[in-house]
Amino acid sequence: MAHVGEVLVAYRERLLALRKDPRLEYVLIFKNHGVAAGASLEHPHSQLIATPILPELVAEELEGAVRYFRMKERCVWCDIVRQERRDGARLVLEEEGFVAVAPYASRFPYELCILPTVHRASFESLHADEVDALARLLREVIGRLARLFGDPPYNFALHTAPLRETDPEHFHWHLELMPKLTRLAGFELGTGFFINPTPPEDAARFLRQAERSPERAPA
Amino acid sequence: MAHVGEVLVAYRERLLALRKDPRLEYVLIFKNHGVAAGASLEHPHSQLIATPILPELVAEELEGAVRYFRMKERCVWCDIVRQERRDGARLVLEEEGFVAVAPYASRFPYELCILPTVHRASFESLHADEVDALARLLREVIGRLARLFGDPPYNFALHTAPLRETDPEHFHWHLELMPKLTRLAGFELGTGFFINPTPPEDAARFLRQAERSPERAPA
Repeated sequence: MAHVGEVLVAYRERLLALRKDPRLEYVLIFKNHGVAAGASLEHPHSQLIATPILPELVAEELEGAVRYFRMKERCVWCDIVRQERRDGARLVLEEEGFVAVAPYASRFPYELCILPTVHRASFESLHADEVDALARLLREVIGRLARLFGDPPYNFALHTAPLRETDPEHFHWHLELMPKLTRLAGFELGTGFFINPTPPEDAARFLRQAERSPERAPA
Repeated sequence: MAHVGEVLVAYRERLLALRKDPRLEYVLIFKNHGVAAGASLEHPHSQLIATPILPELVAEELEGAVRYFRMKERCVWCDIVRQERRDGARLVLEEEGFVAVAPYASRFPYELCILPTVHRASFESLHADEVDALARLLREVIGRLARLFGDPPYNFALHTAPLRETDPEHFHWHLELMPKLTRLAGFELGTGFFINPTPPEDAARFLRQAERSPERAPA
């Protein structure tokens, strides 16, 4: 656990440091685990790429969130957390202050979204006393995927507020975890739509039922 | 060649037949070749999925093309064909009425775009006397990829005008051919941006130099 926590603290410190560089608009932190998920080094590692422009997908997310906020005067991710906790069908796990859910209209089988239950725009705002709970949740979720699928390849990408986003109400950081259990093929590449054979409700149920793997979970 | 031509004619006939179904907005014809490209059957096959809505990527393409048309009063793909033939650096092959180019800002190494040199909105408008030239071009391009990479996995997707698009000036059919030589990973999934280590000018040059594979090319 301590190791995962240290990695999360490193993410935060790198984000805080890079924020000072005025050339940058965004910092993407991500992880490729396993060859099929594009990992090119064998030892566990995360990656960080800072860009002078806002990534397309983050810009689209932000745009949708701003539209939602104007309509409802509430953060869309806060509403998702509230709805998923009340409904329960897509809720996977909860740890003081964080939840893991199988998103409604998941693109990939067993896709997961991990987010703080209280509103936080940037990952950098992670408090020292929250690190443990987040590390526990992340490790547990990956451990359960490993239990179900035998250490599957996966990617995760941390979506945090753009560095220059000044309204703290619009974005709500979240980590998108995408196991690579199926392959993107001609249909996805030709349409931008995703065929996902596993409804998120099923994925969440199987993950809730998967007990903690006894061996050391990959992190 | 005859076989590839028959497949192209089958594409056209299916598109013409499905166009009559008023529930449909789009017909995507695509091919997954090789396990890494998501092929689930071993024998060569194409696939077709008709949708009651316009795929996101096609809608975006059309939107961009319409914007370009309003600005320039010309089809953007006609302009691309003209520019690539004049410039030559990204031109791969030409066959009476069709070209294969490595698109500017290619997303994938050796990504190719095959399109008619004269303006044609829909693939269904393919004339009987054009079938041979297109089949020859497609087979030759795939043969050269096989020569360079030893039968690589690939996807292709046929982008044709939406079934209900009434303005024949806006869309220009094209076939997007995407060899699977690298993997989409966390960066691509997190940003919507693509890292491509092979500039299209290099890909086009290598493909121009690749002589026709003597053995029967996979089609």
